[in-house]
Amino acid sequence: MATNSLVDLKSLSPKFQDLYAKAKDFVENECIPAEKVFAAQMGQNENRWKVIPPVLEELKTKARALGLWNLFLGREYGAFGAGLTNVEYGLIAELTGRSSLGPEAMNCSAPDTGNMEVFAKYGTKAQQERWLKPLLNGQIRSAFAMTEPAVASSDATNIETNIRREGNEYVINGRKWWISGAGDPRCAVYLVMGKSDPDNSNRHKQQSLVIVPADTPGIDVVRPMHVFGFDDAPEGHCEIIFKDVRVPVENIVLGEGRGFEVIQGRLGPGRIHHCMRCIGKAERALELMIARVTDPSRRTFGKGLAEHGTIVADIAQSRIEIDQARFLVLSAAQKIDEVQAKGAKKEISMAKIAVPTMLLNVVDRAMQAHGAAGISQDTPLAGFFVRARTLRYADGPDEVHRNQLGKTELRRAAEIVQKQKEQKAKSEQLIAAAKL
Amino acid sequence: MATNSLVDLKSLSPKFQDLYAKAKDFVENECIPAEKVFAAQMGQNENRWKVIPPVLEELKTKARALGLWNLFLGREYGAFGAGLTNVEYGLIAELTGRSSLGPEAMNCSAPDTGNMEVFAKYGTKAQQERWLKPLLNGQIRSAFAMTEPAVASSDATNIETNIRREGNEYVINGRKWWISGAGDPRCAVYLVMGKSDPDNSNRHKQQSLVIVPADTPGIDVVRPMHVFGFDDAPEGHCEIIFKDVRVPVENIVLGEGRGFEVIQGRLGPGRIHHCMRCIGKAERALELMIARVTDPSRRTFGKGLAEHGTIVADIAQSRIEIDQARFLVLSAAQKIDEVQAKGAKKEISMAKIAVPTMLLNVVDRAMQAHGAAGISQDTPLAGFFVRARTLRYADGPDEVHRNQLGKTELRRAAEIVQKQKEQKAKSEQLIAAAKL
Amino acid sequence: MATNSLVDLKSLSPKFQDLYAKAKDFVENECIPAEKVFAAQMGQNENRWKVIPPVLEELKTKARALGLWNLFLGREYGAFGAGLTNVEYGLIAELTGRSSLGPEAMNCSAPDTGNMEVFAKYGTKAQQERWLKPLLNGQIRSAFAMTEPAVASSDATNIETNIRREGNEYVINGRKWWISGAGDPRCAVYLVMGKSDPDNSNRHKQQSLVIVPADTPGIDVVRPMHVFGFDDAPEGHCEIIFKDVRVPVENIVLGEGRGFEVIQGRLGPGRIHHCMRCIGKAERALELMIARVTDPSRRTFGKGLAEHGTIVADIAQSRIEIDQARFLVLSAAQKIDEVQAKGAKKEISMAKIAVPTMLLNVVDRAMQAHGAAGISQDTPLAGFFVRARTLRYADGPDEVHRNQLGKTELRRAAEIVQKQKEQKAKSEQLIAAAKL
Amino acid sequence: MATNSLVDLKSLSPKFQDLYAKAKDFVENECIPAEKVFAAQMGQNENRWKVIPPVLEELKTKARALGLWNLFLGREYGAFGAGLTNVEYGLIAELTGRSSLGPEAMNCSAPDTGNMEVFAKYGTKAQQERWLKPLLNGQIRSAFAMTEPAVASSDATNIETNIRREGNEYVINGRKWWISGAGDPRCAVYLVMGKSDPDNSNRHKQQSLVIVPADTPGIDVVRPMHVFGFDDAPEGHCEIIFKDVRVPVENIVLGEGRGFEVIQGRLGPGRIHHCMRCIGKAERALELMIARVTDPSRRTFGKGLAEHGTIVADIAQSRIEIDQARFLVLSAAQKIDEVQAKGAKKEISMAKIAVPTMLLNVVDRAMQAHGAAGISQDTPLAGFFVRARTLRYADGPDEVHRNQLGKTELRRAAEIVQKQKEQKAKSEQLIAAAKL
Repeated sequence: MATNSLVDLKSLSPKFQDLYAKAKDFVENECIPAEKVFAAQMGQNENRWKVIPPVLEELKTKARALGLWNLFLGREYGAFGAGLTNVEYGLIAELTGRSSLGPEAMNCSAPDTGNMEVFAKYGTKAQQERWLKPLLNGQIRSAFAMTEPAVASSDATNIETNIRREGNEYVINGRKWWISGAGDPRCAVYLVMGKSDPDNSNRHKQQSLVIVPADTPGIDVVRPMHVFGFDDAPEGHCEIIFKDVRVPVENIVLGEGRGFEVIQGRLGPGRIHHCMRCIGKAERALELMIARVTDPSRRTFGKGLAEHGTIVADIAQSRIEIDQARFLVLSAAQKIDEVQAKGAKKEISMAKIAVPTMLLNVVDRAMQAHGAAGISQDTPLAGFFVRARTLRYADGPDEVHRNQLGKTELRRAAEIVQKQKEQKAKSEQLIAAAKL
Repeated sequence: MATNSLVDLKSLSPKFQDLYAKAKDFVENECIPAEKVFAAQMGQNENRWKVIPPVLEELKTKARALGLWNLFLGREYGAFGAGLTNVEYGLIAELTGRSSLGPEAMNCSAPDTGNMEVFAKYGTKAQQERWLKPLLNGQIRSAFAMTEPAVASSDATNIETNIRREGNEYVINGRKWWISGAGDPRCAVYLVMGKSDPDNSNRHKQQSLVIVPADTPGIDVVRPMHVFGFDDAPEGHCEIIFKDVRVPVENIVLGEGRGFEVIQGRLGPGRIHHCMRCIGKAERALELMIARVTDPSRRTFGKGLAEHGTIVADIAQSRIEIDQARFLVLSAAQKIDEVQAKGAKKEISMAKIAVPTMLLNVVDRAMQAHGAAGISQDTPLAGFFVRARTLRYADGPDEVHRNQLGKTELRRAAEIVQKQKEQKAKSEQLIAAAKL
Repeated sequence: MATNSLVDLKSLSPKFQDLYAKAKDFVENECIPAEKVFAAQMGQNENRWKVIPPVLEELKTKARALGLWNLFLGREYGAFGAGLTNVEYGLIAELTGRSSLGPEAMNCSAPDTGNMEVFAKYGTKAQQERWLKPLLNGQIRSAFAMTEPAVASSDATNIETNIRREGNEYVINGRKWWISGAGDPRCAVYLVMGKSDPDNSNRHKQQSLVIVPADTPGIDVVRPMHVFGFDDAPEGHCEIIFKDVRVPVENIVLGEGRGFEVIQGRLGPGRIHHCMRCIGKAERALELMIARVTDPSRRTFGKGLAEHGTIVADIAQSRIEIDQARFLVLSAAQKIDEVQAKGAKKEISMAKIAVPTMLLNVVDRAMQAHGAAGISQDTPLAGFFVRARTLRYADGPDEVHRNQLGKTELRRAAEIVQKQKEQKAKSEQLIAAAKL
Repeated sequence: MATNSLVDLKSLSPKFQDLYAKAKDFVENECIPAEKVFAAQMGQNENRWKVIPPVLEELKTKARALGLWNLFLGREYGAFGAGLTNVEYGLIAELTGRSSLGPEAMNCSAPDTGNMEVFAKYGTKAQQERWLKPLLNGQIRSAFAMTEPAVASSDATNIETNIRREGNEYVINGRKWWISGAGDPRCAVYLVMGKSDPDNSNRHKQQSLVIVPADTPGIDVVRPMHVFGFDDAPEGHCEIIFKDVRVPVENIVLGEGRGFEVIQGRLGPGRIHHCMRCIGKAERALELMIARVTDPSRRTFGKGLAEHGTIVADIAQSRIEIDQARFLVLSAAQKIDEVQAKGAKKEISMAKIAVPTMLLNVVDRAMQAHGAAGISQDTPLAGFFVRARTLRYADGPDEVHRNQLGKTELRRAAEIVQKQKEQKAKSEQLIAAAKL
């Protein structure tokens, strides 16, 4: 690991080094070999949404026994957390990202991670007991219901789902989509974002977040959305109608009108968890490419693929891009460790913009070297590609992050202009002194 | 149409202009509205491979009645053909490409088009009677079985499927994949490429092409290959095992050892049919993007999408790239019209390299403007994207075409060097005369 | 020529084909060999701004004798013009662009061409007699003084130079820079853009254009601006102070307050003249690259440059980009021929955006293949590069043109949305009818 | 500093932090203000090659007094060196790179740095006394004569300059070009690479490096080469003919036939010194861009430049690219610190490939925001650009480094394939166990 990283594994604690070695072994020797087993154990037809391939639960048992469990929860989560720094978790997440089964096997997969953070940070004791505990145990799964089809919900103030208080209940009405995990038979609970006070003059106090058990009447899972052609069964990304769905008022998170506050706290490190995993996917894609182009059975026109100069150049370019991306992610992780996610907005944005595009490019080159196999179910490449593609708009499209980052840089203008003025004054003074 | 084209519609024959107008109306007002019907009529589960949505056959009936039928077969195919030039068909294909249903509705879809060309050009009367006729009538479909999983089959000489003569029969053994259309219940016939003379010292005479009825014993359609997540049912791109499959010797095409010759003749215009359709897809993607970014319900952070400078710039860039690509395709079509596909290799390569990448870029921008909807089943964008991606390696990967094109340019070296020498001599003579 | 063009030379008039052949011969066999002579005849030190290398005047004499003179003035300029269409002139300009001496040798070089257009279109008889005639004869040169250092003059309404009427004179005060040709000892006249009515509520009526003889008192040519390191002596791109410069009121062009109108008329075809020449430069750069990489003395690590796959791919890519750019330019030329420059704004913008960037890319690859020689005075590549770079902001930066082009596309929104609505209605009707 | 770096200034020694602060102050408040003074003090015409602007020597005196002197020589150079690590020097070099005067002011400019390394590492006591001492004192300058016009000298085995022993002398004959610094009146010595044993069967033992005082008879400095239009007077990059140039045999470096060995040792850290300075140039370019686009006098079409979305996006992109590049350079520096330059080949290549291209892109965006000013002598941008451009082929073109890097990655193939085999075996075993 980390052969190209300013973060030297050897500088980290022996305890972490040990954890890292275990995680590496687990991903390479347990998760990756299990991928084809998972595919073979998938249900057919309707059962695709009902069967959880047993190999996954076996992996979870192994991971937990190895202490590779809930590592995403840092020190700030106290007893819930594993106590890793973000840099340390970044290095672990790079490993889990290599396998499609890695994150869930180690109970570190979205959207559960973010939901567990919400419960841990903002939940009442009762809420934690009922929902956080089984989530931490990997017994249930959860979903986060925010995005809506009718509005541009990358701006959360546009959300239209209605949360109306009636007596001791909230009544929820609205349509959501891209609710990841909602297709999973183990999905027991939704966190639903809606407007409880749509007329509040403060646009950031109109929203509330409520806990909705998945079996509450009035919930209609309409269809799975497709990501390119993938439906990602059994988890799925579902369109859901909430029609007069009623939950007790105790199911509010943090308090009425504080939904925006909660989601602000929920994002942050989560954004770079995706980036961290992307690095691992990119490394695996590059490995697949290297293996493919050196495969002696793949000669064309008298030459092995690795003898073609453009292929070699592609590999070099991928190597550079991966390392540059890793640096950005680890730099963001380090900044979060120092000053919390709020203070690391700039670094998080930089990683969020650059890393998925890097992964798309690296995977694209690997796919091209594989020919038809590269886009098929026979390699993980197509899956890597489409998931990377979704990250270019999820949690804020590239355009929004780039705009924010540019504006952050522009805030340096006054200081720069002042410095330039002083330099110019000094220059004119020197020229006058030299009588030029 | 063609507002940005050096090929001015008005300069084409009134008869063609009329045909073009009909095709345009048919695609926009029949095919595109039928797309969602097609999706709704698709079979569920196993039936996805058994049901042909009725709306497609209705479209075919309409198209045939309108004379929008088999337009891909040019004058050189005599009575079989519609007599269009390649430029004319290029303009039509741009239209059909706009809708996923367009090509088949007008009986102009791959791989049938290439197979019909093979039967028309190289088939015996009997072969034409049995296979070409129903294909021209849109009654059956066909497949072309060339690609193999075990070898780099972009170099056709690598193919390993064995075709052995035994008495009056050929016995075929081998494994093929990515056999498009082989999942379709209407697929009645395969053209199978294999080696009948693997020891021939001339590597281009080892191959033969044989006609194999789809119901011949020994054919095992193993599985559909996935294109990103799409399985493209009911057509599919299938993996097939041929085990001791026997056909009469009359089923040879053109003659033993002439398989390479046939596939050389088969490719050519076919390559740019894909490109032509890509232009149409790109135009539709741009239209979808324009509609999306001007949709008043899609405001974020107080601004409509079309007010963001980067979005406007993206649209401009797409406009330029589409027009440039169309010029390349029409230029190749014109060259084929003048000197046949063989003489237009350079122009065909140029289109083949540039157009799919253009489509990927244009669609990617459109997807990004759509957010999550852009990659879902709710727009045709994801489908456009993955099909464009396959064209970057199908019928020869970009790398191979780019290498050939570069070498073609390099052949000009001698002439250029000679000219430079003369210029230098003249220059030295002028300098001497001027006593500089 | 035009081997990659939809415009087939053979389809043009025999008279033009003859002219084209002459121009080609003249550029290749006279202008290019003269380039090193020109460099050798350049003055040293201060004389760089005083000496016009004699070989240039010799070329002009030859060109005029051959009828290769003032070809840029089309039919609409009546007797002044050569009567070529814009497509025809585009093909000629591609040739002249190949040599740094080509345009001036044939009296078709900026800024004289635009200035001659101004005199021919808007000049009085007396103005034409005094200035247009010697310009058409190639006896004097001229400059166009618009850009100012203190303001963003890509928006002409920002211009601050003051033109004040006093009796029968205009008094001009202001500072201009990047006044091309102003360093040339033959430069006899400036067209100066300034504000004669800065308080006019119509921002496009504040400006006037006046004719200022170069020897008028009060003109101070402060310094030549450098383009990267080039000063482009003897022509230069100068910074000039106008201090109480007085000219008679007859020197107004078209009338007071009509300066904006004149420059609108001046741009247009001129913009694509640059693009046309860029195509020629790109072709020459590619030829230089091909010659270099096939030079047997340039072997590295046991391989000729042309055997490196990335070099071959670069050449292919350049071939594609050049052809695509040529199509854009000729398409714009054709549109101007059909509907005048005003109606061809979109096509002009497309060429203006895409072509200089294409040239930069093609030249960059050629430079890279040349190593150090590529950026030196020993090849024309560095000169091609920096001139292409200036075109990315001259006559409106890429950003402005891209924004305008994007907005032009966005104007199609209403029509597209209407069509989509109809398609959706039809679709729903079909679904209803099919009882899906 | 280093706000985006994994290398935290605070983690470095207080002594270094102090040095860094001094260097920062010196560059910002002394060097940058002196740039225009330097330009004004440049000689005119022939004197451009004779006059050293006094401000430079003043800066050198100040720098030396501040201890900002010869910092490039690390601990391994013992008493000669400043004892900085490569990471530390990298951070300093980022500062010096911000100003064109920075490196020489602090006696850290190429080619003197590399030459001083040669003398320090391989020189005899006498050679060190005569040449190294005055170089370390900044009293003389030096040149490195390797590149030749007639051959592809990026492959040093191609070099043709002849070094023949005659008695106690070496006689040198050959033509070199791009000999940086050879125009400088202070340049007192050349290190000349040539072939002393051209027939040696070991191609890497044919070369020798000899010390040639600049005033030795037979040396003819033919002309300065131009870099784009720049001649870089007074230093220059000269073409030089060596005709029967005689030096005593004591002037050999290290020994006959060991020239290749010496240049291998000379390159290495030197390569990344350029990269380090590029980071500083990029930061300054970005600062210039930020100041320009927020300048209230630069409004176009009613908008300030910083309000255009594409400008903001460009700034964001530059921010990301600069930080990514800095990480690569510091990572290479760190690796050199750990395992010497030889062990850090991969990291050096990565920086060498990526950094100059980054600088070109960042500067290009800054230039575009400046319009015509951006390419002129009024900002340092054009100078930054062309120097970055030369780095894409100097010390080995991008293509060579990319090829080497790709091959380094490919060496991992065996290990990867082995791992994949094991994973596959495990997978099959799991599938068998699950009876799938």
